[in-house]
Amino acid sequence: MSNSLYSTARQDNQTTIVPSTDIEATVQMADLVPAIEAAFAAYENDTAQMPPKSYIDLPQHNGDFRSMPAYLETDDWEASGIKWVNVHPDNPDEFDLPTVMGTLVYTDPESGFPLAVMDATTLTMKRTGAAAAVATDHLAVEDATSLGIIGAGVQSYTQLEAISQVRPIESVIVSDLDDDRVQRFIDTFGDEFDVRAGTISEAAQCDVLSTVTPVEDPIVTLEDLGEHTHVNAMGADAEGKQELHTEVIREATLVIDDFEQTTHSGEINVPWSTGDIDESDIDAELGEIVVGSAPGREDLSGNTVFDSTGLAIQDIAAARIVYESLGDDSGHRLEMV
Amino acid sequence: MSNSLYSTARQDNQTTIVPSTDIEATVQMADLVPAIEAAFAAYENDTAQMPPKSYIDLPQHNGDFRSMPAYLETDDWEASGIKWVNVHPDNPDEFDLPTVMGTLVYTDPESGFPLAVMDATTLTMKRTGAAAAVATDHLAVEDATSLGIIGAGVQSYTQLEAISQVRPIESVIVSDLDDDRVQRFIDTFGDEFDVRAGTISEAAQCDVLSTVTPVEDPIVTLEDLGEHTHVNAMGADAEGKQELHTEVIREATLVIDDFEQTTHSGEINVPWSTGDIDESDIDAELGEIVVGSAPGREDLSGNTVFDSTGLAIQDIAAARIVYESLGDDSGHRLEMV
Repeated sequence: MSNSLYSTARQDNQTTIVPSTDIEATVQMADLVPAIEAAFAAYENDTAQMPPKSYIDLPQHNGDFRSMPAYLETDDWEASGIKWVNVHPDNPDEFDLPTVMGTLVYTDPESGFPLAVMDATTLTMKRTGAAAAVATDHLAVEDATSLGIIGAGVQSYTQLEAISQVRPIESVIVSDLDDDRVQRFIDTFGDEFDVRAGTISEAAQCDVLSTVTPVEDPIVTLEDLGEHTHVNAMGADAEGKQELHTEVIREATLVIDDFEQTTHSGEINVPWSTGDIDESDIDAELGEIVVGSAPGREDLSGNTVFDSTGLAIQDIAAARIVYESLGDDSGHRLEMV
Repeated sequence: MSNSLYSTARQDNQTTIVPSTDIEATVQMADLVPAIEAAFAAYENDTAQMPPKSYIDLPQHNGDFRSMPAYLETDDWEASGIKWVNVHPDNPDEFDLPTVMGTLVYTDPESGFPLAVMDATTLTMKRTGAAAAVATDHLAVEDATSLGIIGAGVQSYTQLEAISQVRPIESVIVSDLDDDRVQRFIDTFGDEFDVRAGTISEAAQCDVLSTVTPVEDPIVTLEDLGEHTHVNAMGADAEGKQELHTEVIREATLVIDDFEQTTHSGEINVPWSTGDIDESDIDAELGEIVVGSAPGREDLSGNTVFDSTGLAIQDIAAARIVYESLGDDSGHRLEMV
């Protein structure tokens, strides 16, 4: 690794502070999707380090914290840092705060210098959308023009933003029990895409489907899906959550982001824990497909499912895109050390 | 735990950015030492959570990163956060940067909101000094007036700053191979204390001794020590490092900050790994003495040794003192989330 990867960036030993608004303003999905793809490749190629998440559980506050450190090296760059993220489901009601917030410290692997500190709340949504796009790029039919979205909450927006980077999406069917959420989604994207409200089945008939709900009982059946629908199962993020009926998971080509995380808290955690699926049902990790050691859509037919739990390497790869995109005139720089 | 512990502090949902200079300007050792003592009590009372440090090793850069998350609750307050810290020994020569830098995210346990992001480089030195003071307060003779310091590098300053809070220190003997470092130390503290350069033996004859060196081969013998010298062994922070001859460790009353960390990388790691000492040589953890379940100086005679490796709970307790000391008019506040 060259000595100069970061030498121009670390000007004046200043640390850049990046609030959510700056991330919203600077991150381009066109940059982020290939960065996340490179992160999955590094993970598969063993040029990444990602210690297990450690948890601090605070039942007295109905919340927890997770620490997510990572390092990764690709052919072109390296990056390191840590995300500290909470899950406090009572926040919206009690404090008018998001359930999940995060802060990321982005460091120079060569010296350890803190290059930037970022809000990771927005960053996490962006990198989650980008991961769905990477999976879609490898697993959806080439000419996918329709996208179904089930669950129109805050995480749904980056699904369309990212997936439309890798497929010529024209029509979008959005399904949610809350009409206001659906309308807000339509208002946001109606000018750019043919967006309409629809049922779960209608959404699931699309070429690509992203499920982005917090449900515990599955809502998508095998019959709901189109013949070649690729499904990004994004919602399940804790034990006991499941969006797709187990028959979908069993019948489709199943691709996961990480074995430990998905079997513990991803879309597959429930049928895994009950023994309704086992290792023979897991066809590949996304990294294997990205590097070409497992087949993508060109060699597949029928339905595919990507179980995404979100990896620290995604956060760090995304943080690098933010940092590199900011430019030297970014507003908030100071000498921290 | 009351709902209002942080409700006044989290004004406007802004996050305070705290560079090193602000920490230097605001943290009072008189506040920090009792906070660190309370942290050790919480650890002993099982009202703290401190997952094991996780490491990212980067041999290609001769460096590593450690993540240090923690939560702690005392009778009066609770606090949570994470420190991300590096060790890159080539930094001073290659980049004119410190070997060790750190960044700390300080969060509200109740909501997960990031209350502050701090430089932890200075903070770590402060809390390390404060830990030595807590140990000294419980293990040194009551009327200790002399302090020896072996190793006059950056970590030595907070030893005197903190220990002089808990004992009526008048004279200081500082020992270092580098005359410039000794002179700088004397210049800093000469007005306040009777400070002079001395040999290792002279320093070790004092009522209290702090060793703050990076040596791998022990430099302090049992004969060097005074009759009742309390030793703060601060320097060893990695496998293979040892400042005190094993006879000192074996003969003295040995108090450690944490079993896992000290046996792995503290002052005792070498004789522990060779079997020259075992569990019977460890008399107590500092937390046990703080809460009164193990004896302090009033029930001890002879030499005492405190093996300090530095715990994440110290960092978080120190971060709280910084945050509470800053006041609402602190310079760097912004909406991160």
